[in-house]
Amino acid sequence: MTRSSPGCPPTSQALDSDLAARVARSALAADGTVTNRWGFHQWFAEYTAGDWSRVSEIPFSGLVGWRFQKSTGNLVHDSGRFFSIQGLRVRSGQGPIRGWSQPIIVQPEVGVLGILVKEVKGVLHCLMQAKMEPGNHNGIQLSPTVQATRSNYTGVHGGKPVPYLEFFRRPRSHHVLADVLQSEQGSWFHRKRNRNMIVEVSEDVEPLPGFCWLSIGQLYELLRTDDLVNMDARTVLSCLPLAGRGLAGTHAGGGDTFRTALLRSLSEDEATLHTTRHIRSWITDARVRVEIDATLINLDDVQGWQWSADRISHETGLFFDVMAVDVHTGNREVGGWTQPMIHARDLGVVAFLVQRIDGVLHVLVNVKAEPGFVDVVELAPTVQCTPQNYQALPPEAYPPFLDEVLGAPPDSVRFDTTLSEEGGRFFRTRGRYMIVEVAPDRDLAVPDDFCWVTLHQLAQLLQHSHYVNVQARSLTTCLHSLIRQPEGC
Amino acid sequence: MTRSSPGCPPTSQALDSDLAARVARSALAADGTVTNRWGFHQWFAEYTAGDWSRVSEIPFSGLVGWRFQKSTGNLVHDSGRFFSIQGLRVRSGQGPIRGWSQPIIVQPEVGVLGILVKEVKGVLHCLMQAKMEPGNHNGIQLSPTVQATRSNYTGVHGGKPVPYLEFFRRPRSHHVLADVLQSEQGSWFHRKRNRNMIVEVSEDVEPLPGFCWLSIGQLYELLRTDDLVNMDARTVLSCLPLAGRGLAGTHAGGGDTFRTALLRSLSEDEATLHTTRHIRSWITDARVRVEIDATLINLDDVQGWQWSADRISHETGLFFDVMAVDVHTGNREVGGWTQPMIHARDLGVVAFLVQRIDGVLHVLVNVKAEPGFVDVVELAPTVQCTPQNYQALPPEAYPPFLDEVLGAPPDSVRFDTTLSEEGGRFFRTRGRYMIVEVAPDRDLAVPDDFCWVTLHQLAQLLQHSHYVNVQARSLTTCLHSLIRQPEGC
Repeated sequence: MTRSSPGCPPTSQALDSDLAARVARSALAADGTVTNRWGFHQWFAEYTAGDWSRVSEIPFSGLVGWRFQKSTGNLVHDSGRFFSIQGLRVRSGQGPIRGWSQPIIVQPEVGVLGILVKEVKGVLHCLMQAKMEPGNHNGIQLSPTVQATRSNYTGVHGGKPVPYLEFFRRPRSHHVLADVLQSEQGSWFHRKRNRNMIVEVSEDVEPLPGFCWLSIGQLYELLRTDDLVNMDARTVLSCLPLAGRGLAGTHAGGGDTFRTALLRSLSEDEATLHTTRHIRSWITDARVRVEIDATLINLDDVQGWQWSADRISHETGLFFDVMAVDVHTGNREVGGWTQPMIHARDLGVVAFLVQRIDGVLHVLVNVKAEPGFVDVVELAPTVQCTPQNYQALPPEAYPPFLDEVLGAPPDSVRFDTTLSEEGGRFFRTRGRYMIVEVAPDRDLAVPDDFCWVTLHQLAQLLQHSHYVNVQARSLTTCLHSLIRQPEGC
Repeated sequence: MTRSSPGCPPTSQALDSDLAARVARSALAADGTVTNRWGFHQWFAEYTAGDWSRVSEIPFSGLVGWRFQKSTGNLVHDSGRFFSIQGLRVRSGQGPIRGWSQPIIVQPEVGVLGILVKEVKGVLHCLMQAKMEPGNHNGIQLSPTVQATRSNYTGVHGGKPVPYLEFFRRPRSHHVLADVLQSEQGSWFHRKRNRNMIVEVSEDVEPLPGFCWLSIGQLYELLRTDDLVNMDARTVLSCLPLAGRGLAGTHAGGGDTFRTALLRSLSEDEATLHTTRHIRSWITDARVRVEIDATLINLDDVQGWQWSADRISHETGLFFDVMAVDVHTGNREVGGWTQPMIHARDLGVVAFLVQRIDGVLHVLVNVKAEPGFVDVVELAPTVQCTPQNYQALPPEAYPPFLDEVLGAPPDSVRFDTTLSEEGGRFFRTRGRYMIVEVAPDRDLAVPDDFCWVTLHQLAQLLQHSHYVNVQARSLTTCLHSLIRQPEGC
């Protein structure tokens, strides 16, 4: 008797049963079973050297296939697909800034960000892609196996088919490790979500040119290199079921080290400062308490922004610009195109404060409203801001803990790498991603909209939509990477 | 050192540690420690007899404080608060009906549905309220401790303060058992959600007139009475952490009975047909696959509906009507009022098919798009429909499993009670709530949009928003109630 259906087949319970141990083994794998450090860098350097793409800033009048719509001023594609730049009017019931309007990217299509994994000689490996994106200041970064909008894979681009997409369009034929819709930048996107997927295959999969098998541990090492692991790879990796259970034993006799506290934080059996039920209740309360009303308006109707031939900018020169690029490449689905992009000129600061509480590492998260979220608030990093922007804002708006992070003594900084935002929409927009440890004996005053959580609690929330924003997901992956002793790369 | 903050205090870990056992004890409590069966019925009968409220249908012109807005035709309150009746245009990419428009209730405010619980002589008791709602055909039903819209408690009504509300507005001073935003009828409400809360107090709380302490087991018994336990009470009770762990031992030597299979279904340790990870992936896939576009329009612009002096009805006479009532009561926050309501004349059928799979009871859920949902789809009962409506629809639209449910042999029907939809918005709108067991040896063909899940898996999803619709939550409570052997009531 089978009760399976095409919609929901009997699960690969066997593959699931020792999943935690298998993920842990790969996360701790020192060097590649398939690709070693030298081999990776050679491959990546060769691939980068062979990339002939050129990206240049152009005036809006140079856009081909895009136009400012007459009746609305919205910047749209002739096909009506891809994305558009519209206006957003925001009214808030709280905080020092009660209302503003801004340009915003509207992209209703859900894309797929998928990493294909396969066990090779007992170690899970991820099929990663060296991918050129026009916004990357360094051209090529390490990306998921598949990074495709619906327009990509339904052929609106008129380009080549997306390699390996079939594994993610029929995930139920394979072993699914993660499959969840996650939000993207709520300040720049209106209700954008992508499907974050990790799918395990058992059959042989040949890496095409531009693809490379890497262990999770290798990816964790590479995260320490500026602008190498792209945003899409970081968000997908954050959904990986990295559980303390799988890592049990690796901290035997570890004593009171940072790494021991981190491993304990990943475990479901350790004491937490707050129960998960209380954390959910705290989030529910914020969803009800925060009054934010975000309405799409015509781009023509945004206030405080000015238009030039090649930029739409805030009159203060802060926040971000809308601009346009021309892309020539020999290396992507299509040979060349033009498109609008968002450009935040100043470096963002994206940081977690962490602290050992009774020997278990806790992360200070901020429940934050961003106007583009589907469900009002999500958990954000302790600090997520662009310091320069506060020149134009009242002092009450100054971010809590920013000085704490930027003034931290060097020996308390556990992670500090500059990473890029997604290069398909954001032009050379980067953030300094930091993890700063607060001494265990300090009693930090914590405002209402902040809460200490463990990595296991974050992992539980990451299984669902609407809980953890894209910056916090990136940082979660950075924090996971610290389960390895740094080896230099 | 304390790391507590007003936003997220150290949790009542002690109260949480044996919560499963305490909930189980109350669920199995045969008769009230505080209120016995005879006492309850006497109290309820007396309270009903003392209810002087009268509800009469009136023409729209009899509404006081409400009007059809000139420019839109929307039915709105003069204050701009409460709720309004607007239009909704729906376009669907799937199914036999690709587009329609309809009236819809728009109520952006999140209300509180809260049950206060307290341990009395070792048994958790719920403070329930005998509450008149204008839509109840029988006037008074058993309701949560608090059932309040924001307009209620911010005094727009100009009425009396809502009793016990303070426990739910500052839940963090108490022990929170559940606190989650849950959707309501997505066919009749546009993105309506209420905050479902269960809060435990330790101090003495005196029941006011109209309130009564009942054990969970007593509430489960009362669910078998037609139109007694109201919708709000049913949805809040579904969020109760009723876990197999707490019930362990109660099926010792239970053999292969329905009740044993039900208890095993509540346990996290039992084998499930599908892993929870696969079920989440199946839901993610539906959110991406289902194309539904629901846009608010002016009520004037709905097509296929006709206006009379006292009804807005579909031209076929099916689906539902918008109508108006005049309410006189000596028994509510305010003495009398008029309001619009929704009236579905025909009885709905709301049913779970359940089956023992390897001795563990599984529930057949349907991933269903309703135009009012915030996140495209939620899990619905196996059957959720009004059979009469299918007269007007093509045969392909006929609901799967409806005949299976209505034609089930009597000895496979485990639950069959007529229950009311929420009486504050729905006028005498009722459903036949059924649980029907499929023989263990039958191999039912299951379409793509259906899946077998255990009660433990449903409980995990119920801790979050956007997963389980209000009809499925009601039925979950009905199914939970079957952990008791029926005793007659």
